[in-house]
Amino acid sequence: MKLTILGCHSATPRDNARPTAQILEMKGHLFLIDCGEGTQMALRKNRIKFARIKHIFISHLHGDHVYGLIGLISTFCLLSRDSELTIYGPKGIKELILIQLKLAKVYTAFDLRFRESVENIPQLLLEDDSLTVTTIPLEHRVFTHGFLFQEKPGDRRLDIVACEEYGVDQAYYRKVKQGHDVTLDNGEVIANEELTMDGDKPKSYAFCSDTVYKEDIVPQITGVTALYHESTFLKAHENLCDRTKHSTAEQAATIALKAKVGTLILGHYSSRYGDYELFRSEAREVFENSELAMDGKVFEFSNPKL
Amino acid sequence: MKLTILGCHSATPRDNARPTAQILEMKGHLFLIDCGEGTQMALRKNRIKFARIKHIFISHLHGDHVYGLIGLISTFCLLSRDSELTIYGPKGIKELILIQLKLAKVYTAFDLRFRESVENIPQLLLEDDSLTVTTIPLEHRVFTHGFLFQEKPGDRRLDIVACEEYGVDQAYYRKVKQGHDVTLDNGEVIANEELTMDGDKPKSYAFCSDTVYKEDIVPQITGVTALYHESTFLKAHENLCDRTKHSTAEQAATIALKAKVGTLILGHYSSRYGDYELFRSEAREVFENSELAMDGKVFEFSNPKL
Repeated sequence: MKLTILGCHSATPRDNARPTAQILEMKGHLFLIDCGEGTQMALRKNRIKFARIKHIFISHLHGDHVYGLIGLISTFCLLSRDSELTIYGPKGIKELILIQLKLAKVYTAFDLRFRESVENIPQLLLEDDSLTVTTIPLEHRVFTHGFLFQEKPGDRRLDIVACEEYGVDQAYYRKVKQGHDVTLDNGEVIANEELTMDGDKPKSYAFCSDTVYKEDIVPQITGVTALYHESTFLKAHENLCDRTKHSTAEQAATIALKAKVGTLILGHYSSRYGDYELFRSEAREVFENSELAMDGKVFEFSNPKL
Repeated sequence: MKLTILGCHSATPRDNARPTAQILEMKGHLFLIDCGEGTQMALRKNRIKFARIKHIFISHLHGDHVYGLIGLISTFCLLSRDSELTIYGPKGIKELILIQLKLAKVYTAFDLRFRESVENIPQLLLEDDSLTVTTIPLEHRVFTHGFLFQEKPGDRRLDIVACEEYGVDQAYYRKVKQGHDVTLDNGEVIANEELTMDGDKPKSYAFCSDTVYKEDIVPQITGVTALYHESTFLKAHENLCDRTKHSTAEQAATIALKAKVGTLILGHYSSRYGDYELFRSEAREVFENSELAMDGKVFEFSNPKL
C-alpha cells in the first residue's frame, strides 16, 4: 500500500501549496482521491500514469477538492483514453461534469460512469477479489464523506520446510496457500495449518476530509493501517472549527488514538500558518505516530518481515 | 500598455506549460483574458493583485481557456472580495459558473455579472472615457470570439515654450490639453494648435485565439499595436488546421502582415513540439516583427519619445 500526496492544502491553491488530491496504490489499483485544481499537473510532476487511474473518489463538491476533475477528464479525452472511468462522489457531481463537457462539445470515447451518494451512512462503493471501498460519513458545510479502503485477507504463506518434510507435491502448493488440506498418496490427510502460516495482514486506509471532529466514525475506522484526517487549524484557532466545520490537529490525533490506527497523516492546513511542524507537535501530544502530509510526499506501508 | 502572458500553451496543462491566460494592463485597467486551469497560481507567481481584476474576458468554453475560472471566483470569495466582477464570454458561461457555485454552496458577497455573447459579429462589450473593448468573431470548433482592446485618443501634449511665450496662465493648462483655445487678457484668441502637439498615439491590442485562418478579421484589427494570434501548428502540420480549426505560425504572420500590425505575438503551441523557436522563424519569413509568447513573459508597449 502506497500513498502519494499530490496536494494537501486547504482553500486557495498556490504553486507550492496544492489543494487536496492523493493517489492510493492498493492491490494493483491506482485510486485518485479528491481532485483540486492543478491535480493533473501534480500527476505529471509525480510521474503517475494517467491511464492507470480507473476510479476517482471525490469527498465533496468544494472547489479545493474537485475543480481539477473536469480538466483531468478533458485531458483523458485528448489522450484518447478508451478504458472505463468511474467517478464516485456526492449527488451533483455528474451534473457538474456533464454540463462542462456539453458546453465544450467534448465527447468521451471511453465509458464514463458516475456513482453518486446521497445517504449519510457507510455505503459499499467498490468490491473485487482483493479489496473493498466504503464511504465514511463526515460532517462539513456541504454533504461530505470520506473513504475507507480495505484489503481483503490474502493467501496463507507456505511453510516450505513443512511441505517438503511431508512430501507434498508442488502441484498442490496453490491449493495449500488457499487454505486447503492435503491428502498424501498414502491416504494420510495433512491439516492446512501444518503446512502454512498466517499471510500478510490486510492493510487499510481511511481518508477523512473535510470534517468537524466526529467521534462516531471511530468504530468504522478502528485499527486501520493509516488514517488521513484533516487538520485545518491549530489549537489557537479551535474556535473556528464549529463555524467552518473543520478540525484541529489535536482533534485529528484524538480520533487516531481512539481508533487505534497505525499512522495518522495530517493535512488540509489553513493558509494562515507558515510552520507546519506545529501541526505535528500538537498532534503528537495526543498520538505519537502522527505524520505531516506534504505535496509530493510518499508514504509506503509494507508488510513486516515475518 | 503592458501584456503579461500567464500561460500560452494548448490542450493539456503541465507545470511548465500553462494553458491560455493573459493580463492586459491598459489605462489603469487590469483585464484578465482567458483563464485556463491553474491561472490563479500563475497570477500569484506573477505577483498580480487579484482585487485589481474587475473584468474577465473568455474567448470560448474549451477547458484550456476557462477551467481555471471557477477556482479563481471561489478564491475571490475566500478573499472576501466586495467589488463588482464582470465576466464576458460565450453563451453558457453563466450556467457553467453558477451551477458550480450552487453545488459548492458558495455565495458571492460581491456583484458577479455576466455578459454573454451569441452573435458572430463585432460587439461592443465595454466602453469608458479611456477605452473600448469589442469582440472579434473567430472560427473554431465551438462558438469563439477574440477581443479588441482600443485606447481612446487622450489629451494633447502641452507646448510649454509656446504657452509661456504667449503668457498663458497655468490655470488654463488643463483646458488647453483638452483642446480648448485660449483668450488672453488683451482679448487675443490663441488657437489650440499653437499651444499643443499631438498626444500619445492610442494603443490597441487584438487577442485572437483559438481560430482557423480567417482573413475577414483583417479590417477590424488593421493597425493594432499588438496582435496575439494563435499558432498551434508549424507548417509541417498545416493539414491538421482544417479539422481542428487552428492556425499555423505562418498563417498568423499572414494575418499580421495584411493587418499591418505593430507586433505579432505567437502562442497556443501544440504540445507535440519541443522547439518553439521554429514558430518564430516560420512566422518571420512572412512578418518580421513576430515574437513568441512564453509563460511569465511581459510585453511592454510604451509611447515613443517625441
